[in-house]
Amino acid sequence: MKSLLRHSLPVLAGILVLSGLFAQTSALAGSYLNAAQSDPRALGWMTGFPPPPERLIMQPESDFFSFPKLRWTVCHIRELMPTKRVYRGITPLTSFEYALDAGIDAVTFTPLGGEKPMTWKESLSVNYTDGILILHKGRVVYEKYFGCLDGMGKHAAMSMTKSLTGLLAEILVVEGQLDETAKVSSIIPELKDSAFGSASVRQVMDMTTALDYSEDYSDPEADIWHYSKAASPLPKPVGYEGPDGYFEYLQTLRQDGVHGEVFAYRTVNSDALGWIISRASGRDTAHLLSERIWSRMGAEQDGYMTVDAKGTPFAGGGLSAGMRDMGRIGLLMLNGGKIHGQRLFPEEVTKKIRAGGDRKAFAEAGYKTLEGGSYRSMWWVFHNGHGAFAARGVHGQTIYVDPAADMVIVRFASFPKAENAQIDSTSLPAYQAVAAYLMKRDK
Amino acid sequence: MKSLLRHSLPVLAGILVLSGLFAQTSALAGSYLNAAQSDPRALGWMTGFPPPPERLIMQPESDFFSFPKLRWTVCHIRELMPTKRVYRGITPLTSFEYALDAGIDAVTFTPLGGEKPMTWKESLSVNYTDGILILHKGRVVYEKYFGCLDGMGKHAAMSMTKSLTGLLAEILVVEGQLDETAKVSSIIPELKDSAFGSASVRQVMDMTTALDYSEDYSDPEADIWHYSKAASPLPKPVGYEGPDGYFEYLQTLRQDGVHGEVFAYRTVNSDALGWIISRASGRDTAHLLSERIWSRMGAEQDGYMTVDAKGTPFAGGGLSAGMRDMGRIGLLMLNGGKIHGQRLFPEEVTKKIRAGGDRKAFAEAGYKTLEGGSYRSMWWVFHNGHGAFAARGVHGQTIYVDPAADMVIVRFASFPKAENAQIDSTSLPAYQAVAAYLMKRDK
Repeated sequence: MKSLLRHSLPVLAGILVLSGLFAQTSALAGSYLNAAQSDPRALGWMTGFPPPPERLIMQPESDFFSFPKLRWTVCHIRELMPTKRVYRGITPLTSFEYALDAGIDAVTFTPLGGEKPMTWKESLSVNYTDGILILHKGRVVYEKYFGCLDGMGKHAAMSMTKSLTGLLAEILVVEGQLDETAKVSSIIPELKDSAFGSASVRQVMDMTTALDYSEDYSDPEADIWHYSKAASPLPKPVGYEGPDGYFEYLQTLRQDGVHGEVFAYRTVNSDALGWIISRASGRDTAHLLSERIWSRMGAEQDGYMTVDAKGTPFAGGGLSAGMRDMGRIGLLMLNGGKIHGQRLFPEEVTKKIRAGGDRKAFAEAGYKTLEGGSYRSMWWVFHNGHGAFAARGVHGQTIYVDPAADMVIVRFASFPKAENAQIDSTSLPAYQAVAAYLMKRDK
Repeated sequence: MKSLLRHSLPVLAGILVLSGLFAQTSALAGSYLNAAQSDPRALGWMTGFPPPPERLIMQPESDFFSFPKLRWTVCHIRELMPTKRVYRGITPLTSFEYALDAGIDAVTFTPLGGEKPMTWKESLSVNYTDGILILHKGRVVYEKYFGCLDGMGKHAAMSMTKSLTGLLAEILVVEGQLDETAKVSSIIPELKDSAFGSASVRQVMDMTTALDYSEDYSDPEADIWHYSKAASPLPKPVGYEGPDGYFEYLQTLRQDGVHGEVFAYRTVNSDALGWIISRASGRDTAHLLSERIWSRMGAEQDGYMTVDAKGTPFAGGGLSAGMRDMGRIGLLMLNGGKIHGQRLFPEEVTKKIRAGGDRKAFAEAGYKTLEGGSYRSMWWVFHNGHGAFAARGVHGQTIYVDPAADMVIVRFASFPKAENAQIDSTSLPAYQAVAAYLMKRDK
């Protein structure tokens, strides 16, 4: 067991970070280099032919997801792992209109739990921002790149991937290809004896399944380690006899409690949902995302998803994509399934998501920066006055949609700590301040 | 040693096939399923959620490059290995004009060493063609897809990658950024004590270096095994103490004989050239290919290259790309560096390549289907009446450029055997017959 762990740990770390499961451990760490100090260009990662040993980022020894290497890795996932493309096709590019507003930099807000005001511009480095895009009334009013990212680059979306998996599921539900009230076992018989078997599709979509699932990193037998070993795309170590791949792993999960009562953020729900939508549609998550969204939204670039050793896309955290393309996802959500004059899916899809999930079940999870919110079809719904909702991924990834302000914000980031609770204090109020600024400006 | 080999073999096989080094071993095999029988869609590789065990293609056990799995793998390299993109950028797409000619299917030719004539159409399945494109006077006159490929897909270019590495080198030479007469050691001091140190850049470009290099697969200490282990993108097995990556491996090669006398096709020359052009340009091969060619030729898709464990692109065989984009490479070579009305590099570059290399040195290598030819800057020059030349990769990959007929043919294929000598008999005369047909038609 010990040797298996030693062999697999670096890969595990990657998968864990992608899926947000390293939140607790990362939070234990101390102080970090600031954004300028940890800029991957300044640190010279992977430069030179060959890069000198102290500038190499590779598996397995160097733990490519550790900070500050993380700040390079988030733009280079495919160079470290096998991936499957999310294709835009070879249709003509569709460009955004620009109406840049230099006044946004000076917008001020007070961080949650803080007293001293901060400017929008200051928040970007505080949050280790790699890319930030603000769309207002469909036009780009703000767009900046830092760290490893540029306008032609791609960045790990981390758990924002879940929201796309959830969106695809909701599309299939609204179109009648997937019954959200069905028991999972009726769609995936292989999951009959697992915790998922007795859950409904909707409970999986909203992460209210009751799973016997431990993320205690100090316990080498915790479920999270089994999950990570199963999901690794690398060949399994000699002697490994556990499940291979997401689908085999999901069958091993046991139930603990009653489904539908409590929201519990577990990436395995997204992988189960990926399986469900694949069975329902006959396409894997990457293929379905390509066919339904990416190839029809005027995407500028292909995206890609990491895969397990059997080629299964990581529906819970594997997507990397360009920032403006994530902006197009935000516009689709903002505008009820329409973008660039095309309707991609029925408006009912976003209506259901924006209505939110079970707020009582959500409250049980105790998210301090998201009080009063809910989780619906793998989107975070704030239930605030603007009807805002978001895709969120560890280390600061977000698509923040504010319908009242006709605004979408995309942030790619590489904050040293995984957990968004740390990042929310200087991002959520900043988003609200920009929304207020734009609404006031346009009056 | 034995256990290291067992652990690494499947990956090695992949790298070997990509680089064409499995030619000899594959030739030992017997009869194969024909093109229709081995069609990867018919065989159902990687279909289902999950694919049943007998339909899985993965590392390490199943040897993803073995025939007939090979026929799926050639379109899915990135799903099995880490890769680096060759970016097209986000510039507008440039489409080809079409002037399809259904008469081409009926063009007949006599296979080399054969007696019975064959039609062009018949040759496609005989050669396990995955995609075939004929450009004449800059327009598409023929375009078909089979097997794993379609018009939005990508296919392994195998050793055609070498020709792009050679093209980039020739561009740097003509532009004065690289001295083809310089000793390699003056550009890469790390290679001073290796076989390459005393060779000139030109000798590396033309593969006339004299290397003490064994490809005897029955000898577990043959150089080819060391090369493959070094190049594997997977974490090195416990206990491995050899070189890690292309750059470290190249330093271990020893000289045997006098440089410049004999052409000997060794992939390591391309990797050495990749290193040379990276040092000279400050960009790795994938980056340089993006910057100088891919982002400026109106490419429809990004390409990508496999990488070693340190992120070094495989300059000798790692490229995957769309077929029409390979057609653009052919047009650039045909039209002296111009495409879609843009000049990408000086005409002198293609003039030098098309003039060919040392025919006497080439004759020593004994290529029966290429008698009278030569190898220049990693392009195969036929020295025939049409001034034809080609990029070639194992299993039937080619960009065939015929200046007299103003024609470019691109073929992607997954012929069961690696060696092109087997494929040439039903492809080279077919290309010549189509050239004659088009010239006669246009008279």
